[in-house]
Amino acid sequence: MRPVAVVGIGKTAFGAFPDRDLRSLAVEAVTNALQDANVPAPEVHAFYLGNFAGPSFVGQNHLAPYIGSAAGFERIPCTRFEDACASSGSAFFHAWLSVSAGIYDCVVAAGVEKMTSQSTPRVTEILAGAGDMASEGRAGATFPALFGMIARRHMHQFGTTREQLAAVAVKNHGNGAKNPLAHMKKVITLEQALAGKPIAEPLTVYDCSLISDGAAAVVLVPLERARDLNPKYARVLAVAQTSDHVALDSKADITEFPAVKAAGEKAYEMARLGPQQIELAELHDCFTIAEIIASEDLGFVGKGEGGPFAQAGCTAIGGRIPINTSGGLKSKGHPVGATGVGQICDVVMQLRGEAGERQVARHRIGLAQNLGGSGATCVVSILEAA
Amino acid sequence: MRPVAVVGIGKTAFGAFPDRDLRSLAVEAVTNALQDANVPAPEVHAFYLGNFAGPSFVGQNHLAPYIGSAAGFERIPCTRFEDACASSGSAFFHAWLSVSAGIYDCVVAAGVEKMTSQSTPRVTEILAGAGDMASEGRAGATFPALFGMIARRHMHQFGTTREQLAAVAVKNHGNGAKNPLAHMKKVITLEQALAGKPIAEPLTVYDCSLISDGAAAVVLVPLERARDLNPKYARVLAVAQTSDHVALDSKADITEFPAVKAAGEKAYEMARLGPQQIELAELHDCFTIAEIIASEDLGFVGKGEGGPFAQAGCTAIGGRIPINTSGGLKSKGHPVGATGVGQICDVVMQLRGEAGERQVARHRIGLAQNLGGSGATCVVSILEAA
Repeated sequence: MRPVAVVGIGKTAFGAFPDRDLRSLAVEAVTNALQDANVPAPEVHAFYLGNFAGPSFVGQNHLAPYIGSAAGFERIPCTRFEDACASSGSAFFHAWLSVSAGIYDCVVAAGVEKMTSQSTPRVTEILAGAGDMASEGRAGATFPALFGMIARRHMHQFGTTREQLAAVAVKNHGNGAKNPLAHMKKVITLEQALAGKPIAEPLTVYDCSLISDGAAAVVLVPLERARDLNPKYARVLAVAQTSDHVALDSKADITEFPAVKAAGEKAYEMARLGPQQIELAELHDCFTIAEIIASEDLGFVGKGEGGPFAQAGCTAIGGRIPINTSGGLKSKGHPVGATGVGQICDVVMQLRGEAGERQVARHRIGLAQNLGGSGATCVVSILEAA
Repeated sequence: MRPVAVVGIGKTAFGAFPDRDLRSLAVEAVTNALQDANVPAPEVHAFYLGNFAGPSFVGQNHLAPYIGSAAGFERIPCTRFEDACASSGSAFFHAWLSVSAGIYDCVVAAGVEKMTSQSTPRVTEILAGAGDMASEGRAGATFPALFGMIARRHMHQFGTTREQLAAVAVKNHGNGAKNPLAHMKKVITLEQALAGKPIAEPLTVYDCSLISDGAAAVVLVPLERARDLNPKYARVLAVAQTSDHVALDSKADITEFPAVKAAGEKAYEMARLGPQQIELAELHDCFTIAEIIASEDLGFVGKGEGGPFAQAGCTAIGGRIPINTSGGLKSKGHPVGATGVGQICDVVMQLRGEAGERQVARHRIGLAQNLGGSGATCVVSILEAA
């Protein structure tokens, strides 16, 4: 296995774009990433596309060659990866593997989703397909309901409070408000977050991520080629993908995700470092409680300490470990299939020192964590500045 | 890259199974393949699952960990691959790459689809998502319509006849009737085939593949480990995946598929042999015309000669190159996501000499060709008997 670098990143804005189709969003992200990498499309050896539910959201399947051919790829393997909300995390994992193993010398990993053409109830139904429809779905358990149960149990077991959940929302909204590409640029107060409309108690609307359209792409090459292409490359220290049961009731303890812990451990081992060396992170805050649990499962804090840690400002820009400086899924937006690669782009922007108002002081090593469903898939990536 | 072998195969019957759910079909195939390979589930390093449209057919997404966890896989990467009707061909390609590149020492590639719970019009609509919905779909062009146009053009350009298309149907129905796992075990005459109900002229119901439920799985290991696990292993000489535009109107000539030609050329080069060395083949006969065109694009015959070749019996069991001894998608059935890996299983059965009544005399080298949409994805694999 040889070292690999991200030499190009490209993102569309995340938001609701009624006038844009899925393909044009994806092509924009891929084109931007190729331009950033100084790589022309015909030099790409394989295309890895993450998409959760294009067929359900916009009626279009077979998306990899559909987008790949429009982006200028000819005859190369174009493949769609689906692992729920970790779809493009998985695409990134396989893309990285292929370059690291010496199969290809230049690949593109991308993700896209167009969700806003469907009504919110229909979106909720489509998202429920990432859970176990035969048990959870049949019982009417949507994802807010599942994460509501998780939050309730975390509160019961560790004394996590509504204020601590709300602190995550306030932070991520504040960060997103400074991100030009974020879906919702709206600063909120703790009072507002606490008074949010209930969605699935104890979660309010401010605990839930957004329904968004958007795309993201990265270009991967062997490290030895990176400097010549783009001096602002980022080195990929580790990528780990893991799995678990899909149904929540198959889990021994719903306040932690074994797939996240396993992916974190694998990634730390591969990168030869520990959570204390991570200087910034993009965590999968599909719900505020998910960010808290991820900060525990990845070892940034001890089990049950995620709530107080967030409330104390330790995860804010300027805190001990800034989490979701992009605004996270909560405020940047969560076009499901684009989220995993989008997180990689956000980490790389920080590593490059290009995060503008949101730039963190220590930005040598960053981590991205992409979660599928209620923890059945996890992809953890660790990157280092050039 | 190191040589790789298929050490285990597992298939469910293909058919309409109202009492079976998608997961139980997939788990049956995976379990059978692991048993055949003498590999316990915990020794598998990664799971590659092909599925075209589980969310649309049965409302279940996130299928890779959903099935993987039920099959006994723990924490390993479980990923769904989607490339229309070539979904599990693509899963097989990536699985083979991973073992060949030395990333993993034991992986499972599988495919599954459960289609018959939807009405035929709804199935047709879901399948149309493998074409370009913004152009073809909007114009009402279903896949039978697209392949009807392809057939008409092939007739116009090369003099291909209705009798030649029907000859493919008669052969595949005859083969399928001898395949215990085939969906439709029904011998038909040329007269019946010619008098079939029109679906999209010139194609009748006998020119179209079936709507089926089913699953298939294979176990891949490095060649050096194969003999110890299962002396009936098959060596993978080549796998190539290619792509093209999705919309038919982007193609210069609709009587050939550049992605198929390119995949064939790559595979032959990798395997260091030519079409004349192939002793049997499973080709993607989603429509009879597709088998004829594939036999041309892969170089078994010259351009435009596929029709007469089939009519002369050259592709029958006992002919110059037996094609679709399994019965093909036409008669064995076409559970879309299962088809690619199913073809690999069928080729391996022939290489092992285990095809019963359908066994061909020369069975040292076999080829499988899996097509996505109207040629936007193609996977060609070449295997050799132990």
